[in-house]
Amino acid sequence: MLETDDPRAGGMKTDRVTLRRRPQRAAYDESTIFAILDATSLCHVGFVLNGQPFVIPTSFGRAGRTIYLHGAAASRMLRELSTGVAVCVTVTVLDGLVLARSIFHHSVNYRSVVILGNATPCEGEEKLRGLKVVSEHIIPGRWAEVRGPNATELRATSLLKLEITEASAKIRHGPPIDDEEDYELGCWAGVLPFALVPQEPVPDPRLATGIDVPEYVRSFRARRR
Amino acid sequence: MLETDDPRAGGMKTDRVTLRRRPQRAAYDESTIFAILDATSLCHVGFVLNGQPFVIPTSFGRAGRTIYLHGAAASRMLRELSTGVAVCVTVTVLDGLVLARSIFHHSVNYRSVVILGNATPCEGEEKLRGLKVVSEHIIPGRWAEVRGPNATELRATSLLKLEITEASAKIRHGPPIDDEEDYELGCWAGVLPFALVPQEPVPDPRLATGIDVPEYVRSFRARRR
Repeated sequence: MLETDDPRAGGMKTDRVTLRRRPQRAAYDESTIFAILDATSLCHVGFVLNGQPFVIPTSFGRAGRTIYLHGAAASRMLRELSTGVAVCVTVTVLDGLVLARSIFHHSVNYRSVVILGNATPCEGEEKLRGLKVVSEHIIPGRWAEVRGPNATELRATSLLKLEITEASAKIRHGPPIDDEEDYELGCWAGVLPFALVPQEPVPDPRLATGIDVPEYVRSFRARRR
Repeated sequence: MLETDDPRAGGMKTDRVTLRRRPQRAAYDESTIFAILDATSLCHVGFVLNGQPFVIPTSFGRAGRTIYLHGAAASRMLRELSTGVAVCVTVTVLDGLVLARSIFHHSVNYRSVVILGNATPCEGEEKLRGLKVVSEHIIPGRWAEVRGPNATELRATSLLKLEITEASAKIRHGPPIDDEEDYELGCWAGVLPFALVPQEPVPDPRLATGIDVPEYVRSFRARRR
């Protein structure tokens, strides 16, 4: 199933995740895929229930070739995924609007990853390690400072893992590409870039006086993106 | 199938989209759902191919109770959706990280909408109107300034519509909610808000001199969010 004629192909490429259109925007190597996964902590999880696809946003973490999803044990999505059904995890980072001179050539600059597979539940030590992976993926430094999960909380939490073995990345960047004759049109063209920017932290109204915003929260601004 | 005992219930609520957990975070009324859809132009589209769910990011537009999706006529997703298969369109706006004193009560502030249905292709005048809806949803003002689609471009483009009749919104906002005994812990707690912020526009390297960034691009900063 693996193809090796693509210089950027890696172990993640299968027929199901191969981009047919604009293959020059595709990548299948670990480093490209992992970099996109690490640029955000929000993913969209797709699964099928009674023939109907559902797409649910949720947080995730990555360690090596493993994606971890967590949530309430009572959650419909996690219960369904725990049974090993086919799942699709998609991560998208929106980088900007591409404004061309013709409406047809308008586009979006973005980086996305699509992962196919089956999730399996983690228990015991693996579950605790995986929960830490998710926490540290979302905001590095937080896990060490807060109260860890007790037995009741662990029971109320599900942690699933998904091995990244079948995945593709798609990247569009750079300026608009117009038809040659349209470059003479007088309208502005270019890219309106976007950035997901952390704002000033908002203390909990019940925060005790004298507790400063930690450095790892303050510096989050610089690390992400 | 509709329930009317929920004060926020609207015509969008069915059993399949009803939130079982944390129903206080759910909404089914048009104004809440439309406001979230209008806060972004990125959605994640879920569909099933040979039993495997796929989740693909794409731009969308909304007019009234209709969602429009567009793309290359040759796109696998659009060809598949054109056949009327079950689809799920999910929109998520990430508002911030909720940092509690216990790892268990960490959360995310966000607004999301899940729409279930079946898409149908648009042709002729309806297609042109729908393409304008998508364009104006992404960046209002752009359609009037650029070269419109010619016959060849229209043939190469698919436009699908999806009526919003079965949908739910989920919203989490506000500070962390810790267990009462954890409020005495000495760690910082609160929200780290996020904003998707347009950056300085980047002119096309081939832009002719003397063409300024249009006001509707400059003011995009203030309108979105």
